[in-house]
This record gives sequence, C-alpha cells and structure tokens, in this order.
Amino acid sequence: MQVISSIAELRARLNEERAIAFVPTMGNLHEGHLDLMRLARENSSREHGSCVVASIFVNPLQFGPNEDFDQYPRTLAADCAKLQGLVDVVFAPSASEMYPVQQTVFVEPPPVASELCGAARPGHFRGMATVVLKLLNIVQPQLALFGKKDYQQLHIIRTLAAQLNLPVSIVGGETVRAHDGLALSSRNQYLTEVERSEAVFLYQTLQAMRRSVLQGARDFELLQQQALKALSDRGWLVDYVAVRDQSDLQPASGGQRDLVILAAARLGKTRLLDNVEVCIGE
Amino acid sequence: MQVISSIAELRARLNEERAIAFVPTMGNLHEGHLDLMRLARENSSREHGSCVVASIFVNPLQFGPNEDFDQYPRTLAADCAKLQGLVDVVFAPSASEMYPVQQTVFVEPPPVASELCGAARPGHFRGMATVVLKLLNIVQPQLALFGKKDYQQLHIIRTLAAQLNLPVSIVGGETVRAHDGLALSSRNQYLTEVERSEAVFLYQTLQAMRRSVLQGARDFELLQQQALKALSDRGWLVDYVAVRDQSDLQPASGGQRDLVILAAARLGKTRLLDNVEVCIGE
Repeated sequence: MQVISSIAELRARLNEERAIAFVPTMGNLHEGHLDLMRLARENSSREHGSCVVASIFVNPLQFGPNEDFDQYPRTLAADCAKLQGLVDVVFAPSASEMYPVQQTVFVEPPPVASELCGAARPGHFRGMATVVLKLLNIVQPQLALFGKKDYQQLHIIRTLAAQLNLPVSIVGGETVRAHDGLALSSRNQYLTEVERSEAVFLYQTLQAMRRSVLQGARDFELLQQQALKALSDRGWLVDYVAVRDQSDLQPASGGQRDLVILAAARLGKTRLLDNVEVCIGE
Repeated sequence: MQVISSIAELRARLNEERAIAFVPTMGNLHEGHLDLMRLARENSSREHGSCVVASIFVNPLQFGPNEDFDQYPRTLAADCAKLQGLVDVVFAPSASEMYPVQQTVFVEPPPVASELCGAARPGHFRGMATVVLKLLNIVQPQLALFGKKDYQQLHIIRTLAAQLNLPVSIVGGETVRAHDGLALSSRNQYLTEVERSEAVFLYQTLQAMRRSVLQGARDFELLQQQALKALSDRGWLVDYVAVRDQSDLQPASGGQRDLVILAAARLGKTRLLDNVEVCIGE
C-alpha cells in the first residue's frame, strides 16, 4: 500500500491502471469506511488488475464558520494502519495541495442541497460537491463508493455525476451500526458516556416510524411531528425528521413505494445523522 | 470521419483512444474554427494514434431569454463537409441527449464571469462552463482547444480546468480575421452590408488603443472613454471597452506587462466581440 500526498505523484502512479475503485473519506476511519473499502475491492475485482484508492482529506470548503473543522479528528497513521491490506493507494493531500489558490469555481448542487442537512448547514453540499468533483478528476476512477449513512450526500453525488456526465459509477454502501444500532460516525466520539447511551434513540425513532409506515400509516406529517416531539422530550435538538421519496428526496406524498426516513439532531454539542429506507409492499 | 449524436456511441468509439484532442463548437463553422481543428491535429500528432474530435452543439443553457438562441445558424451538413479530412469524429448531440432531465447541477464560474460579457449576459458563462464540463467529461480529451476571440470564455475555462483539477490541457487558438481585419464570427452574417463595412471599426479601435499603450499611454481609463466615445459617435452601442491583465482579467493598473484590450459592442441587432493582446516591452 502506497501513501501519496501529491496530485502529480498520484496521477503518475495511477496512469497505467485500467480499473480504479475510489473511496473518498475525511479519515478517522471506522468499520463503515472499511466496509466501503471491501465493497470497492469486491465490485472491481472482476476487472483484471483493479486498483482500490482511498482518499483522506478533511475538506475545509464543506465546513461552516461555526462548525467543527478544527476539532474534526485527524488520525492519519491509525487510518493507514487500518487500510493496510484493504486498499492499494491512500491519497492524503494537504489543504494547499487541493487548494493552491483560493477556490472561486464551485459545483452548484441541485436545489435539494438547501433542504434537510443543507438547511442547517448552508454551503455544506456546495463545498462537498466541489471537492468530490476535484477528487474524481484527480483519481479518475470507474467506480466511486459512498456510505448510505450520508444519504443526502449520496443522492447529490449521484445527481451531479449523472448531470455532469461523469465517466464513473456511483455505488452506495450500507450503513454500518454499533451493537445497539447507532450508526457509526466519526462524530460519535464527541459524545459523553451518557449521550452515547442515549444516541441510539435516533435510530430507534426512525425504526418505529418505519414500522408505522409498513403497518399502513400514510400521514407522514403526523409521523414526523410525533418523532420530533419524542426526540425533543428527551433533550434532542432536532434539525429535521423527514419522510422522503428515495429517487429524488422530495417529500413523500403517499403514492411512492420506495421511501427513506431521514433525521438529523443534536445531542449536546454533537450533531448526529441517520436514515432508514422503507420499501412499501416489501 | 464519423458523425455521432449519441453519448453512449461516442464513448464506445473513443474508448480505446489514448490521445484525444477536442474542439467544442456551436457549429456554423468558419475559418476560425477550422484553424482550431488544424491546431488540434498539430498538437496531438506527436502522440501515436491521436484522434481529433469536434463537437457541434448550440447550448440553450448559455443563451439568455432575449438572446439569439432560436435564430443562431444551424448548418450541420455544411459543417460536416468542412470538417471532412480535418477531424476523425464529429459529435453532434441533440438538446435532449445533452439534457435528458432538467439541468439542476451547474458550474459556478469565478467572479470575473459576471464582468465584461457576463455583465451584459447574466448566466451566460455559467451555462457555457456547465456544458463545457459536460462535454469534457463525455469526450475525455487530453487536449481541448478554444479560440482567443472569446477571450473571457477561454480565461474562465482555464480557471475551471485548473481549479476543478480536470485532466486536460487547455489550448487557445489565435483569432482568425477577414481581409479587412474583422474577427471571424458566426454572428457576422447577421450584419447588413452597410454594417459589415462598419464592423471592422471595432478592431481598428482596439488596434489604436494598443498602439497608444505601446507608445507609453498608461491612463487606461481615459483610453477606454475615448474608444467608447469613438464607437458611440459612429452609432455603436458599446457594452464595454476594457484594458485588463491577461493573467486574471482584472483591470490593468499600469504595473502589469501582459495586457489584453477587450470590447463588446452592438451594431444594429448584432453583438460583436473582439480583443487584442498587448505585451509592454515587446
């Protein structure tokens, strides 16, 4: 496994590769990330001489001025140890390698980027989409993998890849959860012990909504209000709980069959995300 | 020479090519375009098995609601006849091939895109940059060529390619002129006979400014005002006359050595562009 920090060196290394699978991350890797690396290998192993590349880059462009950019955990050595045997190349550029001049060209993401997480984090998806496009142009993979835990992010990347005609297939990996059901996230480590045991209630709430929908509930507005109240009553600061159509992330009206229930809420200082898919008639 | 209108078919055709040079156009080809095709061949002929691709697509996204999108001349058969022997592949997609769904993802161009031509044509460079990125992603060339006649466009494409890490080299081709000096443009055919003989005055004005600068004039504001008045006095409706730094298209302050003088002005219903480079100390 090679660890490369220069774009020119990475391009030289990948120049002769014919089949590249790419997993962009912000590092501080957990089993959710490692699962994506395994999925990358599986999906590309049919190709002769396939190469799996992971990137580790905490992208300043996608953090707001009052967010946790400085605090975000950087653990490159430990990350590389975990990636050993799973990937062929780790790309870990500095901020000045990625942004040698002030960035003035951006990806303008679709309107859904200002809803859900985008409402609480203005500019987040613009910054994310811009760095993902840069990374895809640098690595030039045939396959790029992203976790379903960041469902809206995955949706925006799929939309961007389709509408900009990127020569890459986007693959979503299932959310990996702790034993109690909490979705793995680098931000979980911000939680105090008490918060950590409460944290799973977000997933439990989504699961309860999912059961209601499968049992026939179609008043999604009411379900959302109930969930919001249940979370607030336990001290959560809820950004949103939303039942949406999987295909376009627009509010579900009852006619669609493939739904996703998404939530973002803060427990103390930590903002947690989760979502569950619901296929009616499954 | 193959003429291809489907993205899938084009990708299949170009799949095994190792060195592609690409010239995107809106068709209605004149010697300026054909010169770019020859430059593409020259620049890529060092590569074994190089392939020159031209695209012909009148991009609705870069026309404003009151502009000449409907009127813009479409002459595909004549264009293909001119390209015979110069290029290997012509890509001529329909609007629905390029935009199968309503485009909601865009390239947000750098701030200079709202100045000069961008001031008169809001959204123009956003639409241009978006389709250029789509075309580059479809064709995946090593080299892409654009005329210097659209100097600001070329500058924005260079900026976009650099900041989005596109794996392509951007090459600018010199402006090709009619015998009297008028820059070739598909829009010249909108001119009446009387307007056509007046049209060269735009270039003459820029050349006069260039001589003044080379003779030591440094009050660029005054030069601009004089040129604007000279044009207006002859019935031109001037969008701008501007002395700018070649490297960033910011207003020249006197210290820079590599300048460009740009102008856009309307003669009757026809909007004409031109520019001349000035290297002080040459």
